[in-house]
Amino acid sequence: MTLWGGRYRGSSDRRMRRFCDSIAFDHRLKTVDVKGSIAYANALQQAECISLDERELLLSGLQRILQEFEAGEFLFVEEDEDIHTAVERRLTELVGQVAGKLHTGRSRNDQVATDLRLYLLEQIALLDGALAALQTAIVTKAQMHLGVIMPGYTHMQQAQPLLFSHWLMSFFWKLQRDRERLAESRKRTAVMPLGAGAIAGHPFGVDREALAAELGFRAVTQNSVDAVGDRDFVVEFLAWAGLLQVHLSGLAEDLVVWSSREFGFLAVDEAFTTGSSLMPQKRNPDALELMRAKTGRIVGHLVTMLAVLKGLPSGYCKDLQEDKEAVFDAVDTLCEELRLAAQIVLTLQIDGDRMAAALDEAMLSTDLADYLVRKGVPFRESHRLVGLAVRRAEDLGVALSHLPWEEYVAIDPRFERDLHGVFDFEMSVNRRTAVGGTARGAVETQIARAQLLLNHTRSTRE
Amino acid sequence: MTLWGGRYRGSSDRRMRRFCDSIAFDHRLKTVDVKGSIAYANALQQAECISLDERELLLSGLQRILQEFEAGEFLFVEEDEDIHTAVERRLTELVGQVAGKLHTGRSRNDQVATDLRLYLLEQIALLDGALAALQTAIVTKAQMHLGVIMPGYTHMQQAQPLLFSHWLMSFFWKLQRDRERLAESRKRTAVMPLGAGAIAGHPFGVDREALAAELGFRAVTQNSVDAVGDRDFVVEFLAWAGLLQVHLSGLAEDLVVWSSREFGFLAVDEAFTTGSSLMPQKRNPDALELMRAKTGRIVGHLVTMLAVLKGLPSGYCKDLQEDKEAVFDAVDTLCEELRLAAQIVLTLQIDGDRMAAALDEAMLSTDLADYLVRKGVPFRESHRLVGLAVRRAEDLGVALSHLPWEEYVAIDPRFERDLHGVFDFEMSVNRRTAVGGTARGAVETQIARAQLLLNHTRSTRE
Amino acid sequence: MTLWGGRYRGSSDRRMRRFCDSIAFDHRLKTVDVKGSIAYANALQQAECISLDERELLLSGLQRILQEFEAGEFLFVEEDEDIHTAVERRLTELVGQVAGKLHTGRSRNDQVATDLRLYLLEQIALLDGALAALQTAIVTKAQMHLGVIMPGYTHMQQAQPLLFSHWLMSFFWKLQRDRERLAESRKRTAVMPLGAGAIAGHPFGVDREALAAELGFRAVTQNSVDAVGDRDFVVEFLAWAGLLQVHLSGLAEDLVVWSSREFGFLAVDEAFTTGSSLMPQKRNPDALELMRAKTGRIVGHLVTMLAVLKGLPSGYCKDLQEDKEAVFDAVDTLCEELRLAAQIVLTLQIDGDRMAAALDEAMLSTDLADYLVRKGVPFRESHRLVGLAVRRAEDLGVALSHLPWEEYVAIDPRFERDLHGVFDFEMSVNRRTAVGGTARGAVETQIARAQLLLNHTRSTRE
Amino acid sequence: MTLWGGRYRGSSDRRMRRFCDSIAFDHRLKTVDVKGSIAYANALQQAECISLDERELLLSGLQRILQEFEAGEFLFVEEDEDIHTAVERRLTELVGQVAGKLHTGRSRNDQVATDLRLYLLEQIALLDGALAALQTAIVTKAQMHLGVIMPGYTHMQQAQPLLFSHWLMSFFWKLQRDRERLAESRKRTAVMPLGAGAIAGHPFGVDREALAAELGFRAVTQNSVDAVGDRDFVVEFLAWAGLLQVHLSGLAEDLVVWSSREFGFLAVDEAFTTGSSLMPQKRNPDALELMRAKTGRIVGHLVTMLAVLKGLPSGYCKDLQEDKEAVFDAVDTLCEELRLAAQIVLTLQIDGDRMAAALDEAMLSTDLADYLVRKGVPFRESHRLVGLAVRRAEDLGVALSHLPWEEYVAIDPRFERDLHGVFDFEMSVNRRTAVGGTARGAVETQIARAQLLLNHTRSTRE
Repeated sequence: MTLWGGRYRGSSDRRMRRFCDSIAFDHRLKTVDVKGSIAYANALQQAECISLDERELLLSGLQRILQEFEAGEFLFVEEDEDIHTAVERRLTELVGQVAGKLHTGRSRNDQVATDLRLYLLEQIALLDGALAALQTAIVTKAQMHLGVIMPGYTHMQQAQPLLFSHWLMSFFWKLQRDRERLAESRKRTAVMPLGAGAIAGHPFGVDREALAAELGFRAVTQNSVDAVGDRDFVVEFLAWAGLLQVHLSGLAEDLVVWSSREFGFLAVDEAFTTGSSLMPQKRNPDALELMRAKTGRIVGHLVTMLAVLKGLPSGYCKDLQEDKEAVFDAVDTLCEELRLAAQIVLTLQIDGDRMAAALDEAMLSTDLADYLVRKGVPFRESHRLVGLAVRRAEDLGVALSHLPWEEYVAIDPRFERDLHGVFDFEMSVNRRTAVGGTARGAVETQIARAQLLLNHTRSTRE
Repeated sequence: MTLWGGRYRGSSDRRMRRFCDSIAFDHRLKTVDVKGSIAYANALQQAECISLDERELLLSGLQRILQEFEAGEFLFVEEDEDIHTAVERRLTELVGQVAGKLHTGRSRNDQVATDLRLYLLEQIALLDGALAALQTAIVTKAQMHLGVIMPGYTHMQQAQPLLFSHWLMSFFWKLQRDRERLAESRKRTAVMPLGAGAIAGHPFGVDREALAAELGFRAVTQNSVDAVGDRDFVVEFLAWAGLLQVHLSGLAEDLVVWSSREFGFLAVDEAFTTGSSLMPQKRNPDALELMRAKTGRIVGHLVTMLAVLKGLPSGYCKDLQEDKEAVFDAVDTLCEELRLAAQIVLTLQIDGDRMAAALDEAMLSTDLADYLVRKGVPFRESHRLVGLAVRRAEDLGVALSHLPWEEYVAIDPRFERDLHGVFDFEMSVNRRTAVGGTARGAVETQIARAQLLLNHTRSTRE
Repeated sequence: MTLWGGRYRGSSDRRMRRFCDSIAFDHRLKTVDVKGSIAYANALQQAECISLDERELLLSGLQRILQEFEAGEFLFVEEDEDIHTAVERRLTELVGQVAGKLHTGRSRNDQVATDLRLYLLEQIALLDGALAALQTAIVTKAQMHLGVIMPGYTHMQQAQPLLFSHWLMSFFWKLQRDRERLAESRKRTAVMPLGAGAIAGHPFGVDREALAAELGFRAVTQNSVDAVGDRDFVVEFLAWAGLLQVHLSGLAEDLVVWSSREFGFLAVDEAFTTGSSLMPQKRNPDALELMRAKTGRIVGHLVTMLAVLKGLPSGYCKDLQEDKEAVFDAVDTLCEELRLAAQIVLTLQIDGDRMAAALDEAMLSTDLADYLVRKGVPFRESHRLVGLAVRRAEDLGVALSHLPWEEYVAIDPRFERDLHGVFDFEMSVNRRTAVGGTARGAVETQIARAQLLLNHTRSTRE
Repeated sequence: MTLWGGRYRGSSDRRMRRFCDSIAFDHRLKTVDVKGSIAYANALQQAECISLDERELLLSGLQRILQEFEAGEFLFVEEDEDIHTAVERRLTELVGQVAGKLHTGRSRNDQVATDLRLYLLEQIALLDGALAALQTAIVTKAQMHLGVIMPGYTHMQQAQPLLFSHWLMSFFWKLQRDRERLAESRKRTAVMPLGAGAIAGHPFGVDREALAAELGFRAVTQNSVDAVGDRDFVVEFLAWAGLLQVHLSGLAEDLVVWSSREFGFLAVDEAFTTGSSLMPQKRNPDALELMRAKTGRIVGHLVTMLAVLKGLPSGYCKDLQEDKEAVFDAVDTLCEELRLAAQIVLTLQIDGDRMAAALDEAMLSTDLADYLVRKGVPFRESHRLVGLAVRRAEDLGVALSHLPWEEYVAIDPRFERDLHGVFDFEMSVNRRTAVGGTARGAVETQIARAQLLLNHTRSTRE
């Protein structure tokens, strides 16, 4: 028996049912579905659609179902199309025909949209916590290795020396933006569609604002047609997830490359690597590689949802059912990944000596150009002169600091004997003092700001 | 001659240059590039990197270049790799070697990121205005046809009667969310990377906060590694654009279907249709179809950017250059499309008679079930009983209102003689009085709220 | 205990293991994995890496495992990372240390690529059969309703009359291309990577060609580095699936629109619709809507895989593990969908009267223009003249055939009294006799060709 | 004046026209459009729709237009919506009203599909040539450095030693598959839609097969509804392009990483690098990075097209116009990129000494395990024993070959004095003799096969 059997003569095709039913995945909405029904029963009673006694009966049944869910004792049956029908079926078994009153003025169209939002609100809180934990790991690690200098890269070529901690903190800010975006999209997720019915709105005078308040929504939808078909919050979430994944893939890429034998700047803790079935010597950074790859997975979900929504007519269409698996998988993937990322960052083994050994004096070319700038040479000119010096040093097969002073003077007389003072990586780093620069002081300020932000969210989170 | 020639021996491959150069598209950043340089010249002088006289010289040259851009007199030459080198080359022609001082402490890495943000901030303002204009068109049209009732659809099957204006207003709220999102992503776009240099930060003590203020940014980036490689604002913009496109595609789909001969609910004004080269009778809603199709285009850009960023190492990589064409095209497409959409909505010819004629009484089945609910029948039971009535009416080939009372009673005695009062589309509509419902009063409230929002943004926009 | 434990000191992190392990989904490769091992045992024996007795022992164990899989008696344990380790673990339990010889010269890198190809080859055969069945349903249905005329649409506006069967047959050819593509991508899937080892090739003289023949591959890979990292066959399959989905989404869209009350051209059999939880009258074409929506899902998988592969270094990376879930889900989705589509097509209820009633004479405008063409008027001119007639008829509110002859003559004297012979939908249809046209004879030829193709594949399929 | 003005009263909106017109990009179809018209004029004459004289007039005008295109003298005017109307307008200017006969039985729907296919057939030939040239560069380079041994990587960790040429040849086979796929998709592109009209077919008895033969198509479409809406060939092309891009991105990634200072295995020729505006020492592999990034661009186009097509109704819709820009850009991008890739490969500076120096003995662990296997130890057991040796060597801080024999024996007595013979990278390489392995002989065979394939296509290409 289905919810919608009255007008139907025969029964529906079994294969069709399997194809259309969503119970295989939307059972994950079970708790929020029941919570929504509890609040809705209250609202129906307040609107005098049901009596106080009927409400009590419904609530007792719904509470019992919640308990069955928690205890793992709820039995799904073949006919349960989706979580809503499963709950209604069980409620009928428990409290009889009064269960049929719970659907008064409510459609699965507004119900499922409400459920998915409630679910996502819970997950957003968890994800924000996991993000904060990863940020904390980053800050902790950055403080731990504050003196370590490493080559900074652009185009994967050595560019300028950096503090390792400065590099690491760059991910703090990416994650900070992710958290800002998550909070913003949360606002729009916390808008309640319940009471929109199938498409036209609610005819029994339910107080939607009160209902929203009871369920923890911050507002109600303003148009029932929009309410049942709106999946903006899903797209927003998946786009958010895709961008977060891009950040994680960047972190993974850096760590994979730097833990290669050739770079050797750091090692991923053994606990987060795996071996090879063929090659006894291997320690593979599998977790990081998957972190990189999951970006494809989540971007795939985003594309799925955008393509599903493209060109859909107004109101509810069954196409929207494709929203759930994408959301569930994105949530699961990211929760796991963020926790893992925090542990990997915390346990990274940093090899400051290898980093130091890798520093090439050519990276101080800009500093050498700046040296001329300080003597009044226009930067473009000094850039050209240093370029000639780099070439000359290359031709002679010597490091820039070993290029004799005479050679420098031959290029330009404004090179003076003090030029060799430039060849100091630490000084180079510490010259970048402007806000956001790699100078030690600037990085300390940066870390302090990051901690302020972390403390702030810690104190404001419920 | 290039900016980076010093260390180079030979010249670069011409084909490679064509492949790598960005001048073919980034010339669109010309104005913001010069504005950025003007502010930077001021900042260099304040940091005492250049003298007051040098600043004046630079500013006079930059102002002259701005004028040349405006007058269309700026001549690009073969060697101009990108807009930055074009401007620097011209500046050198105009003011001599002092032009070379403008690059002190600045890299194209931080410069291009600053330019693109400045450009996008300008375009966001225009796009928000175009969104508001489309919203205004929707509200105007909704008010104009307030009494018109049409079938509401779910699954493209008639579901429940709706006010045409209620349907139309559903797009107001989608666009309202788009505007909220745009404002939020604007916040993160308005953060200045200038002063991050190539990757390590600024060594000449420039006051980045003052520089940001002069350029209209609301904050400065906090980490130079992040600053040069961060394209979150591009992804955010494209994801925003993709979701807006989904909304526009939905509007287009409804209008295309409803302007078919078979629906005939409305006609797109002739000015926004095109004819056929073969079939003399045709009036095709080409503009709407393209509006639907552009969703694919913009989603494509979003995927481009996410795939480009996936797995990139930290710092600047040339890969990032792919950001600009995607952004430019998305901006152009949406600006044009939004203006067109507003005109199409305003000039829609609504055929209220066809809509009324299309209303099928079966759509009042829910009202009939609600009738029983009001008599105390649980909704699930009343739903089943009405289903039987629908089937019976179908078997007899009559409309639901013409099914004799005896037939109803045979199904269930709780059907009474007053049941036929249910068969009134206007009453059905006006029963949905809860917030966001289709009742006339509720729609009037909805429109009033929409106008408040529009007035609010109108008054707060600079 | 893992396969790669020797060099490891501690144990790996549990969370990491859960994140990295693939057993949750790759258990679907269980049968092909064992089959691959059976063939590999034979190959090792032929290469004299193992003795005949050892081979017998291995084969007996592997056969036993196959039986356990079939009987559902195979027990997975916590430590089973993936299907390969699960099988090896169980084999060791069954036959002892000799099991350890089976991995001689084999890595999971070449093994998993071989397994996935074997799996896909099996599924491709099933999918091709399901495609042929859908094609057969289309041909059957097209023959059944050969006389039915309906409006043909471009831009969702009535364009020219068509045979319903002609419209339906258009999907035959789309599917025919899908089958061609599938056969081609099958060729490249049927290339065996086994023997490539981890990356460098096989050092024990195994005869790869013989091994390939035993496993049903048509060739062996020619480069071991390529062999272990190549997922072209996965991308090809997903791109194939995406395009097939586009075709199915087009079929679904037509049927959803045409089964609306306003079109009413056909009805989806009740068995393939579902009702509404709120609205007792509804019959929703859920299965078709999901068929449309699954396009997003499969395109998402394609994007996933392309994004995963983008920028990966050569050789095997763990990122490649993301290939399997995408493939499994695409296979499952399409198998189910194709079977359902065949049933839906076969049971469609065609309403030829509604189609006939919907035919608008304006669709004969091209025929009217062609009438003038036959009198020597250049088509462009006749198109313009008929356009004027359409406008005039519209102004007078009459159908084109009821526009008095005098009105036609007033537009152009080359309109003669015989012009009204044009207004015959059947004649219009039957004039399109060129190959691929909608004339009845042409459609019969088309169907005959289709049947030939179907018979051909039926006879050549093993 | 438009092609479809007759029935129209007012004029169309200018903004709408700009939004809908395609002339800004489809002018690239100009030559094939005229060629199609020339053949069509012949076909019309053979079908006796036009006289021999009329045909001559049309052909003379069309030839003149071709010349104008070639000479760059063709003037487009404001009213030209698309390339078809531009040509028809100009033809009318040149030969008068007879130009209007050329559209007899032809619609822009079948015309544009024919044009795009003709265009793509031309480009496919060019792209195949460019692919062959890149393959030739790879083979040439592989032969040039046949003795060079480098570390082979999985998970970016050293795995087993490889011939550099073996690694390089892995790309030959990827490209070979790309060429196979291109040839297959070419087959389906070479099917002519002309004669399908707007949707219903051709009513004037044109011989489509003869027409196809004249235009170089290998077949004609079998269903007119399918013919005008089918863009499978576009999706196939873009999917092909996306996968080719994935291959190029992999090549780029390897080269970018290996040309880092830390790997230093090779250098990209100076001509294909660019410098930095800030850092005088830099040589950035910009071209390779863009090659990697363009993958995002092309995958974006593929997604665009799939999303555009998803859920489109049958027949022609304006949405299809989005096909052209995606195709044009993909063609341009890949042509340029393939030529550049060939030059970059040919001019790579290989540093065999750095590669040799990077070889870590741990990579010979598998060989050491195989050594035990040859003594009868099951591989799994020998893998474990060598793992212990690796750990022991690590603990003692010595290379595997310097771990004293006693240590080995302590692990397992089956390690004998001859074990040190294993520590020879060249022998390790040369043991992988199976087809596709890295042994020098196997690589020579591989190269010979590759050359055969190249010679074959060279001789069969027209």
